[in-house]
Amino acid sequence: MAKCKVSYAPSVRRLPSYLLIVRQSLAHGDEYISGTLIANELNLEPIQVRKDLSITGITGKPKRGYPVAPLITAIESYLNWNNRVEAVVVGAGNLGSALSGFPGFRQHGLYIVAAFDADKSKAGSKIRDIPVYQLDDLSTRIPELGVSVAILTVPSDTAQDVTTKLLEAGIKAIWNFTNVKLKVPDDVVVQNEDLSSGYAMLSVKRRIKSASFMGDAI
Amino acid sequence: MAKCKVSYAPSVRRLPSYLLIVRQSLAHGDEYISGTLIANELNLEPIQVRKDLSITGITGKPKRGYPVAPLITAIESYLNWNNRVEAVVVGAGNLGSALSGFPGFRQHGLYIVAAFDADKSKAGSKIRDIPVYQLDDLSTRIPELGVSVAILTVPSDTAQDVTTKLLEAGIKAIWNFTNVKLKVPDDVVVQNEDLSSGYAMLSVKRRIKSASFMGDAI
Repeated sequence: MAKCKVSYAPSVRRLPSYLLIVRQSLAHGDEYISGTLIANELNLEPIQVRKDLSITGITGKPKRGYPVAPLITAIESYLNWNNRVEAVVVGAGNLGSALSGFPGFRQHGLYIVAAFDADKSKAGSKIRDIPVYQLDDLSTRIPELGVSVAILTVPSDTAQDVTTKLLEAGIKAIWNFTNVKLKVPDDVVVQNEDLSSGYAMLSVKRRIKSASFMGDAI
Repeated sequence: MAKCKVSYAPSVRRLPSYLLIVRQSLAHGDEYISGTLIANELNLEPIQVRKDLSITGITGKPKRGYPVAPLITAIESYLNWNNRVEAVVVGAGNLGSALSGFPGFRQHGLYIVAAFDADKSKAGSKIRDIPVYQLDDLSTRIPELGVSVAILTVPSDTAQDVTTKLLEAGIKAIWNFTNVKLKVPDDVVVQNEDLSSGYAMLSVKRRIKSASFMGDAI
C-alpha cells in the first residue's frame, strides 16, 4: 500500500472542533471570531489555532479576528465537507449501528445510505432509515448505489476478505474500525480508527497526572 | 481545566499497533524482532519506529533488533497496561454497548464492570456479562465499585451534567466520546475521542489522492 501522507495531520484533526465553534458563533449572529476565543474554548494556544487555520488558506484581521462565514467556508472546502459524500457501513453490529446513526456525520456532508451484515437475518431490516443488506450482496449493491466510501466495522478475522470484496465492488476509501492493517492498491485510501490509540493516550495522561498529584494520592 | 500535555502523543498513539505485532511475534516463538520488520508491517519508516519505541526506555541490539518479551513489558509498563484498570460505561446506547463488548480492551488491562443509562427500562439488563444500572444510581454505585475511570457515551446535551455527577462520585479520568469540551478540575484527566477527527483525515486523504490520481478521474 502506498502511503498517503497528510502533512498537517494534527491540524487536520483539530479542524472539526474549530468548525463546531465557528458554526455556533454564526448561529449567535457574530460577524467575526477571534483566534484567542477559539483557543480559550478548546484549551489551546492562540498561536496554535492561527497556525492550524492557516492551512485552509484563511487569515484573520488584526483586532477583529476571522470573518465567521468565510471561515466556515474555508474549513469546509479544505475538508471537502461542502460536498455530499455517500458511504456504506459494512458490519451492522453495535459499532456499525452506532456509526450509522451518528448525528454529526450529516453536518459534515457524510450520508450513510446502506449497511451490510454477514447475519442474513438482519437483511431487510433498517437502522433508523438505513436499509441493511446481506454481506453477499455487496458486489451488486455497491455499484448500484454508486458509493465509493465504506466504513468497516466487521470482526477482525474477516476484515481483509471483506476489504477485497469491497475493492472489487468499486470502493476507493475505507474508514477502518478494525485493528487489521488492510492491504489495498495505491489508488485506495484507508483511515485507521484505532480505539486502542485513544486508550493509550488516556492511560499515559493518567500516569502523568497521578505523578504530578502525588500529594493527593491515598 | 488544566492541560495535561503528553509530549510524545503521536508516538503514544502508535504504541498499541507495535504491541499487537510484538505479541504476535511472541506467539510465533520469536526471541528478537527488528525495528525494520515492525516498520514494514505498519508502513512506517524504521527510524520512526526506533524513535517511538525509545520513549518506553528500550533500545534494540544491532543486527538482532529488540528482545521480544522485554519489549512487550516495556510498552505495557509505559502505558500502565500491565495493571488491571476498571471502568464504567455511561450511556448504554449502540456506541456504549459496542465499547462494553470490545474484545481488545481486556488485552490492555481495561475491564468494564458496569454500564449506566438514562433509560430506566434498561436497568437490570446486561450487555454481555456487564450489568446495566440506571443513571441516577451513579452516585452510589461508582463509590461501591471503587472505579475511577468512566467512558462517556451519553448524548451531547447531557454530557456536562452527567460529568458533574461522575466527578462527585469519584471519577478521575474520562474517555469522552461526546463532542462536548468537558469542564473538569485539575486533578481529572479527559481524553477526547472525536470521530469527526478521523473523518476529517479520511476526507483530506481522499482529496489528496484524487488530485494525485487525476488521470484516473472520470
